[in-house]
Amino acid sequence: MRERVLILMGSESDETVMAEAAKLLAKFGVAYRMTVASAHRTPDRVEELIGSARADGYGVIIAGAGMAAHLAGVCAGRTTLPVIGVPLSGSKLVGVDALLATVQMPPGIPVATVGIDGAKNAALLAVQILAVGDPELARLLDDDRAVMAKRVEEMAQQVEARSERTLGG
Amino acid sequence: MRERVLILMGSESDETVMAEAAKLLAKFGVAYRMTVASAHRTPDRVEELIGSARADGYGVIIAGAGMAAHLAGVCAGRTTLPVIGVPLSGSKLVGVDALLATVQMPPGIPVATVGIDGAKNAALLAVQILAVGDPELARLLDDDRAVMAKRVEEMAQQVEARSERTLGG
Amino acid sequence: MRERVLILMGSESDETVMAEAAKLLAKFGVAYRMTVASAHRTPDRVEELIGSARADGYGVIIAGAGMAAHLAGVCAGRTTLPVIGVPLSGSKLVGVDALLATVQMPPGIPVATVGIDGAKNAALLAVQILAVGDPELARLLDDDRAVMAKRVEEMAQQVEARSERTLGG
Amino acid sequence: MRERVLILMGSESDETVMAEAAKLLAKFGVAYRMTVASAHRTPDRVEELIGSARADGYGVIIAGAGMAAHLAGVCAGRTTLPVIGVPLSGSKLVGVDALLATVQMPPGIPVATVGIDGAKNAALLAVQILAVGDPELARLLDDDRAVMAKRVEEMAQQVEARSERTLGG
Amino acid sequence: MRERVLILMGSESDETVMAEAAKLLAKFGVAYRMTVASAHRTPDRVEELIGSARADGYGVIIAGAGMAAHLAGVCAGRTTLPVIGVPLSGSKLVGVDALLATVQMPPGIPVATVGIDGAKNAALLAVQILAVGDPELARLLDDDRAVMAKRVEEMAQQVEARSERTLGG
Amino acid sequence: MRERVLILMGSESDETVMAEAAKLLAKFGVAYRMTVASAHRTPDRVEELIGSARADGYGVIIAGAGMAAHLAGVCAGRTTLPVIGVPLSGSKLVGVDALLATVQMPPGIPVATVGIDGAKNAALLAVQILAVGDPELARLLDDDRAVMAKRVEEMAQQVEARSERTLGG
Amino acid sequence: MRERVLILMGSESDETVMAEAAKLLAKFGVAYRMTVASAHRTPDRVEELIGSARADGYGVIIAGAGMAAHLAGVCAGRTTLPVIGVPLSGSKLVGVDALLATVQMPPGIPVATVGIDGAKNAALLAVQILAVGDPELARLLDDDRAVMAKRVEEMAQQVEARSERTLGG
Amino acid sequence: MRERVLILMGSESDETVMAEAAKLLAKFGVAYRMTVASAHRTPDRVEELIGSARADGYGVIIAGAGMAAHLAGVCAGRTTLPVIGVPLSGSKLVGVDALLATVQMPPGIPVATVGIDGAKNAALLAVQILAVGDPELARLLDDDRAVMAKRVEEMAQQVEARSERTLGG
Repeated sequence: MRERVLILMGSESDETVMAEAAKLLAKFGVAYRMTVASAHRTPDRVEELIGSARADGYGVIIAGAGMAAHLAGVCAGRTTLPVIGVPLSGSKLVGVDALLATVQMPPGIPVATVGIDGAKNAALLAVQILAVGDPELARLLDDDRAVMAKRVEEMAQQVEARSERTLGG
Repeated sequence: MRERVLILMGSESDETVMAEAAKLLAKFGVAYRMTVASAHRTPDRVEELIGSARADGYGVIIAGAGMAAHLAGVCAGRTTLPVIGVPLSGSKLVGVDALLATVQMPPGIPVATVGIDGAKNAALLAVQILAVGDPELARLLDDDRAVMAKRVEEMAQQVEARSERTLGG
Repeated sequence: MRERVLILMGSESDETVMAEAAKLLAKFGVAYRMTVASAHRTPDRVEELIGSARADGYGVIIAGAGMAAHLAGVCAGRTTLPVIGVPLSGSKLVGVDALLATVQMPPGIPVATVGIDGAKNAALLAVQILAVGDPELARLLDDDRAVMAKRVEEMAQQVEARSERTLGG
Repeated sequence: MRERVLILMGSESDETVMAEAAKLLAKFGVAYRMTVASAHRTPDRVEELIGSARADGYGVIIAGAGMAAHLAGVCAGRTTLPVIGVPLSGSKLVGVDALLATVQMPPGIPVATVGIDGAKNAALLAVQILAVGDPELARLLDDDRAVMAKRVEEMAQQVEARSERTLGG
Repeated sequence: MRERVLILMGSESDETVMAEAAKLLAKFGVAYRMTVASAHRTPDRVEELIGSARADGYGVIIAGAGMAAHLAGVCAGRTTLPVIGVPLSGSKLVGVDALLATVQMPPGIPVATVGIDGAKNAALLAVQILAVGDPELARLLDDDRAVMAKRVEEMAQQVEARSERTLGG
Repeated sequence: MRERVLILMGSESDETVMAEAAKLLAKFGVAYRMTVASAHRTPDRVEELIGSARADGYGVIIAGAGMAAHLAGVCAGRTTLPVIGVPLSGSKLVGVDALLATVQMPPGIPVATVGIDGAKNAALLAVQILAVGDPELARLLDDDRAVMAKRVEEMAQQVEARSERTLGG
Repeated sequence: MRERVLILMGSESDETVMAEAAKLLAKFGVAYRMTVASAHRTPDRVEELIGSARADGYGVIIAGAGMAAHLAGVCAGRTTLPVIGVPLSGSKLVGVDALLATVQMPPGIPVATVGIDGAKNAALLAVQILAVGDPELARLLDDDRAVMAKRVEEMAQQVEARSERTLGG
Repeated sequence: MRERVLILMGSESDETVMAEAAKLLAKFGVAYRMTVASAHRTPDRVEELIGSARADGYGVIIAGAGMAAHLAGVCAGRTTLPVIGVPLSGSKLVGVDALLATVQMPPGIPVATVGIDGAKNAALLAVQILAVGDPELARLLDDDRAVMAKRVEEMAQQVEARSERTLGG
């Protein structure tokens, strides 16, 4: 059976952004659990969730947090499952703080970091990881890529059409 | 057979840093190929290497590049295998340019970014990804973690001893 | 016959900004094609458009992209035509990411970078490039400069008038 | 008995900088323990040391770490003792990463952050905290301040003398 | 009797943010005085307020200021009481200027810096400092922590419920 | 007779901010001329205005510009009158570009730089400069400082009153 | 006859970096003149050199400057020839100041900016611009690209060989 | 009699950089006093020096400081003489902290900021300020400018000669 994905966020206020990750996993038929766990306010909760994650059938952790974003790093220190960090922009520093606090991990404890507010990409990366040993999932990813490419080409036609109409380019 | 890792770097000058990735993979008994391929100077080479990577038995790509580091992103656009990006510090901007050019990927094409010059962590992350479906490799990772923890405790004793000797703390 | 300009953008969402480039080229009577091509989602499309660009009669490429903006660099790796990069601000980092990902190209593959969201300047630069061997176009540029200067002087008179009226300066 | 200070550092390589904190505490006669504990490699060790810190007689925690510096924040999540964070410069980003990862804590879990590599100031702050309820220690701090002021005045005289000699200012 | 907290802000416009500090102190039953004093426009006022602060029964100073935020540092130069600096975001640089101007103090004069606009955390830190010698206050802090943890768990349940309902995760 | 101040701005769009400078000069009875002159679009105009500035009775130049703000530097290269630069925030980089382009002048050609959008402070600085040899103007500055201090004290009373009413601090 | 390139630098200290531009132009057989002209210390000299540049047979200007780098922008304000700006790193800010002061030009006056210290790329870009109407020069550029690609492939073989020898990858 | 310049530095370690200011003033025959005074360690000393500065015959203050550089701002709060701030680079942040802490002053209290480590420019600016009412000093400044221009032209000839010799440009 395919491993599941555990989506953690540091605060309820991160739900809107992180729900994009859940939505993408659902689209690919990857089971997940999405919940709140704060590295600072509920360290025991993080420890419990992460400590048994591999045994609980999870294959990848996605952790989204803002400001001095420690959640992904703390998870990474509690498991050898791949941990994907999503730096969130909810501060005056628009996520630069969260990006550096997530990506600049010391040797030995990696966090797979995606862009600021990149919850959707985090989920795609999780699917890519699960697809390493899962040809069916890999095929779905390739299909998705093809759909994306087609959509770009449709956009291209529309932009070209508008450009010709308006400006006679 | 266990999937292999393809390590790419944008320039020969990145070899010293990227060799740490190779070294770590070797330690975990993970097969790899390490070579040079520039997204800008040899786009066809990148396309060939990446286009057939999954069929060639690779499970993860590691791409290290500096400055306007496009290599990881270009790889990610050519495969749905997980691509790990290593931003390299070889510029006046000490890797800030490479970090942003690697991590800030648009929706749909994730790059799993590690810290600046984080080649070793990139390799560890690759092992973690391959270990998702490989309990033996997962066990090796847990062992490695235990060794790390033990080393910290040894360091702790030494630091405490020195501190007491020198300062009578 | 005068060379044309190929305007690429990474996403339909860049159209509003990039249309300023089209508008300026139209004003100078420089033919162009404006379309969408993503370095990551449609690498083949970029390759095709750029690979034959010189043969297709294009003299300059303008590429606008945001975030980890690879489009201009990828184009520059596929042609020896001058490539002008427009870093776009559509991210939490307001274009700093796109600026560094566009301008910090490695030796051998230059991108002529303009300011963040500087689509109009990109087009002006394209006209300047085409004008190197085209005295008539050069004359149009000089005329445009004179108009600009005159407009500044008009603005100056208005500001001085307002300043005297309000403050008795 | 006066509360003691617990000095933690994330890695043995931080010892040189953090030893300045120990030295200052020793000068003020404040008892301390200095040891290594990594938030990522030894989370249990951090939890044990911090969990019982107040009961063990510690009044202040000083935590020094570099890169995505989580140590101070993780300590702060495990105790309500004041935690002083020292962002360390040991990365390509010269401590900007550690500074943001230390100071930008979410509401509810403060870290008292000092400047990059500011181990000495961290120790002074610890003494100031312990001196809130300790008039004798407060007096020592005031004496130290007077010594500092006097040293500045001596430096001033030397600089003035040199300035007059060399330049006839 | 418990020491009080002196809350200073550089300008009336900082009142909304700094009032969060007052509110938190009131919640913990810690007496305080909140007032305005500008390091640049009223240096004498700052000097008077701070010079007698310890004698007046204050145990901690909280100083909030924006831009080239000198208030906390100037206070720290006039007392050996712990000074907590709150960098405020009221400028085009969203508090980066205030953060660096507050935290990067020279050796000898520490400022305990919290995050940008972190007035609430400044007050919590002040309570933690006063609680070092005050077991009752320490107990209140622990209670508060437990309440926070409980609230996170409630949020977690809500997020999980919503996630299951909406997406069938 | 007292020297006048020449206020230049690079574009009409800077008028709102720069008018604060004019307003302050008017308050101090310092004569000025405020006009538009672009270092890039009207270099000759800048040259003419600045070249004869000292002869025309100006004592100080104030130059406000945004983005790659060259106006102040270009003025400083054309006169030995003191030139005050006001970096303006009208770009995606909120004035960081203008600040660095204004303040980081090479040895030999100083620009007296004030904060981002600091037109009012630029004018105050101009008054301070003119007051060096003008005791009456110096007295007006001291009076203004006293008024400022008084206003802070009034604000302080209001904030204290509100604080006591609301929170019983 | 092929247009020439005018290489300007703001100071003699920029010669080492800018000489790479001259070297590359020489390699492509493109005539050039390389000299010093400071936007601030010798504005008249810049004006004279640039004012007649098109008439003097120049097709492209390359301007290298550090700190608040105004040289390229000032040139761009004096000609409608394409101006390539090279931000130089000779300051404590390692070229960030020069980059922003060069690239963030206002609408109407573009500067084609290359990376920090990117003198070689500036020259390549100049050759690309001259090659727009010069098929022979375009062919030389394509040849150069092929040589680059070949060199990458040779490096690749060496790196692979070393990797196999050392690590048994 | 010509007003004198008071040069302050926050620490003896700033002497090497600040001595350039003294040297330039000596060259222009402007009397000065250079001494050490720390805004944090010797606030009373700063207050005394600055409080009587105008009465003591000083016309301009130059204040150099690093890190959270408060010295210039604190001086500016104690006098209405023009205060020139020199941000010094002696920290891990190479003067970015000092620059922001010096230039971003709140409305009402300007600091005339020069570039990082720009002590020489600070002194030149001081001379320019004193020259506003001193035609002789203004003439010396113009002479100095002419010498600078001449030196640039000599450098230009040397660079051109070398360029021709080496590369046949």
